[in-house]
Amino acid sequence: MEMQLDLEKDSSAIEILSDFIATAPGKHEGEALMRSRRAVLDTIGCMLVGIDEPVARNAISTVSQWGVGNAPVIGTDICLPSPWAALVNGSAAKAFDYDDWDDPSLVHTTSTLLPGILALLDGQTAKGSDLFHAHIIGVETIIRIGEAINPGHYARGWHSTSTIGAIGATAACSRALKLDREQTACALSIATSMTGGLTAQFGTMIKPMHAGLAAKAGVLAASLAANGITARKDTLDGKSSFASTTSDASRADFGQAFARLGKPWAILEHGLHVKLYPSCGGTHRVIECALELRNTHNLDPGDIAAIEINVADYVYELLHYGLPRTIPEALFSFPYCLAAALCRGQVGIDEFHPSSLSDQQIYDLANKVTVNTRPAPDRSKLFLKGDPDIVTVTMRSGVEYSHSVDVPHGAPPRFADNQTVERKFFDCASRKLGDKQATGIRDLVFHMNSDWLMSDLNQLLMVANPVDSKPR
Amino acid sequence: MEMQLDLEKDSSAIEILSDFIATAPGKHEGEALMRSRRAVLDTIGCMLVGIDEPVARNAISTVSQWGVGNAPVIGTDICLPSPWAALVNGSAAKAFDYDDWDDPSLVHTTSTLLPGILALLDGQTAKGSDLFHAHIIGVETIIRIGEAINPGHYARGWHSTSTIGAIGATAACSRALKLDREQTACALSIATSMTGGLTAQFGTMIKPMHAGLAAKAGVLAASLAANGITARKDTLDGKSSFASTTSDASRADFGQAFARLGKPWAILEHGLHVKLYPSCGGTHRVIECALELRNTHNLDPGDIAAIEINVADYVYELLHYGLPRTIPEALFSFPYCLAAALCRGQVGIDEFHPSSLSDQQIYDLANKVTVNTRPAPDRSKLFLKGDPDIVTVTMRSGVEYSHSVDVPHGAPPRFADNQTVERKFFDCASRKLGDKQATGIRDLVFHMNSDWLMSDLNQLLMVANPVDSKPR
Repeated sequence: MEMQLDLEKDSSAIEILSDFIATAPGKHEGEALMRSRRAVLDTIGCMLVGIDEPVARNAISTVSQWGVGNAPVIGTDICLPSPWAALVNGSAAKAFDYDDWDDPSLVHTTSTLLPGILALLDGQTAKGSDLFHAHIIGVETIIRIGEAINPGHYARGWHSTSTIGAIGATAACSRALKLDREQTACALSIATSMTGGLTAQFGTMIKPMHAGLAAKAGVLAASLAANGITARKDTLDGKSSFASTTSDASRADFGQAFARLGKPWAILEHGLHVKLYPSCGGTHRVIECALELRNTHNLDPGDIAAIEINVADYVYELLHYGLPRTIPEALFSFPYCLAAALCRGQVGIDEFHPSSLSDQQIYDLANKVTVNTRPAPDRSKLFLKGDPDIVTVTMRSGVEYSHSVDVPHGAPPRFADNQTVERKFFDCASRKLGDKQATGIRDLVFHMNSDWLMSDLNQLLMVANPVDSKPR
Repeated sequence: MEMQLDLEKDSSAIEILSDFIATAPGKHEGEALMRSRRAVLDTIGCMLVGIDEPVARNAISTVSQWGVGNAPVIGTDICLPSPWAALVNGSAAKAFDYDDWDDPSLVHTTSTLLPGILALLDGQTAKGSDLFHAHIIGVETIIRIGEAINPGHYARGWHSTSTIGAIGATAACSRALKLDREQTACALSIATSMTGGLTAQFGTMIKPMHAGLAAKAGVLAASLAANGITARKDTLDGKSSFASTTSDASRADFGQAFARLGKPWAILEHGLHVKLYPSCGGTHRVIECALELRNTHNLDPGDIAAIEINVADYVYELLHYGLPRTIPEALFSFPYCLAAALCRGQVGIDEFHPSSLSDQQIYDLANKVTVNTRPAPDRSKLFLKGDPDIVTVTMRSGVEYSHSVDVPHGAPPRFADNQTVERKFFDCASRKLGDKQATGIRDLVFHMNSDWLMSDLNQLLMVANPVDSKPR
């Protein structure tokens, strides 16, 4: 029998959640800690590779006019006031679509959590263990709320990275500030007033900024609560609440999800998707198909006459870009991602450089892609075992090759291992940092016990005299 | 025949709106200008009286850790970075529920608009006429969007001050920054990612902060667009848009509302409600009834045996507080507001001082109030001609007195005149400023041609060596 809390009788969702957040034991070990380490290292890599992208650069130009502060902007020599550092680092983490996410919530999980935690933990007193704990608390909040309000929430058009993400970031920030349960409850409620964000923005610059906005909301909500701003305790699951205005979830749905708070930790029960390609998760199965076909049959892109893909209708509604005009559109274009995979044999950061966007070979091949759709059996799951995406390539010779993938590498239960995450991290970090600095970050996050000071990490994340990548 | 644009054929709602905002003639005269002047003076008064309330004080404590800037915090000697000044001034303007609002949107209009305008207009070059124009543009945006998406939006639980307000504030801020139509379109779209806020927060500290959050969102969205952040143009009325996720409005509804952009100006067609009591607008009809009964019959509160009120069920759902425990609750409590009116013969700022909350006479009388409800004929209108709220007072002698009000003084078409607005302003301003300074503000805003520099106004709005009101 599934456990369930009776929220009508017991408490509101916010009260139960804030009790849990304020009192959960703060030291993790074993697999839960390892998964958090992996997520943090992976997201730092994404930040380092995203910080010179236009969305992050424009965000820095905007907020730099509003003062300097103590929170590091990763991969730069700039420190900003904590809300703005969170906005910039979150936007950088998602500049590509390379950062982790989870299934119940469809939130880009760590990119909404880590920036606020980095901005608020005191460098001189807080430790690595505080970072991992705040992260695991944030993951817990995001996934359990996702369990309660999805698929209805996301399917209505809410970009949960920006909506649920803001509440999760607030949970992590509340913990980073060591708020008590009353303050944490107010912070979570305040966060329900900061939850805009639509999936309609896929393929634009504001889409990656949703992670930054969520992180900034977390810093702001937790800081307001720490300074005595109060709010109602029933705005997550009550009447006219976040749940009632944005989903069809009932109090019973929250009761069911919240009965499992920390039992087991959601990061263990569900885990996070580590992304091996920097484009929207919805493109990952066809990319893996294309790479597999190219390698197995040693395909020459010039010999390809036509390409058909079969994907869930729901995903195609979200990713409807044909031939992309901009990098943000390319990240959400099936034809582009597929053609890049077949032409280049890889889909990495370089495939989303403006020079690749004008690669005639990719362009010609993308023009040969036909997208067919099938009804999505579950609008809350991108990857469903037994319901694969299919890529069929027809050669000029008339020969057809076909491949299908249901769960791509990196997605649960095909979790990325430490070596894979490290390899991805060094590929990202090498674009911004020297080997020594990158290795230092890897060692702190992956190998040392978590008693190091946050200032140790912050120092490694900053770049003295940063050289911008070539303008893109 | 009602004019209507065919948005499917013509353009998206954001495109039409941004064209209008970026190109509308920037100088106003006559009644439209006068109404804007009235709104600005009225809201400055509300800010001056709200700046020492806990919500504003706690907001200042929070954001002061994030640097100093150039934007004045009204009634203090503090200047903050523009987003934070907007947050604080907006929260101060609504600390009581004393600031203006409009009917189609149910937004607290000027308190969401003015803070961003003050924060962004350059003191040395911008003029009073720029302020009034940005305000009128913001009013237009808020009211026309309200026409399109209400009553469905508000009735679902969205606190439109925080949601529509953020988009309206962005319109005003875009104009203050002189953004072109492309940038304005991006700014409006970015704002749709910043639109949280629930009516469930009525009676809490975060409720007044919704105006501040909207104003801050306006500053941030317009500034991000000015720095090159781009976004989709169909997120107001398209698929998975602000309208589709938060209302039942169609493109036709936007077409109908937007066909009247500036023809006539919404501030003329609808006008703004000036509030004569600092509590929720939903309480104003019964307050006016109570004051009328007290004066007409020279009632002694001690002789009252029972009080019955009859109000719309919808309003009572929003204002369900009985005997309030806090000032924010008192602002949304029918029994408290009614009892204060009958005991004191006025409902002003003093009636929402903590000492009034513990006034035994008010408490005893509030205990005698019974609230009866009737079905609301229109859930988008607080005040409807021919559908009055009714107060019936039964004296210990058995005599009954009854009075009803459908449209209270200050609400269209019973607009407040200049004298009334001035009187209210001086009552508010005298709590914070000397006579000379208050008169200076009144003269600039009301009497002089609008060529004065913003720095002239800003200087008068600041208080050197401010003395906090007694702690509340």
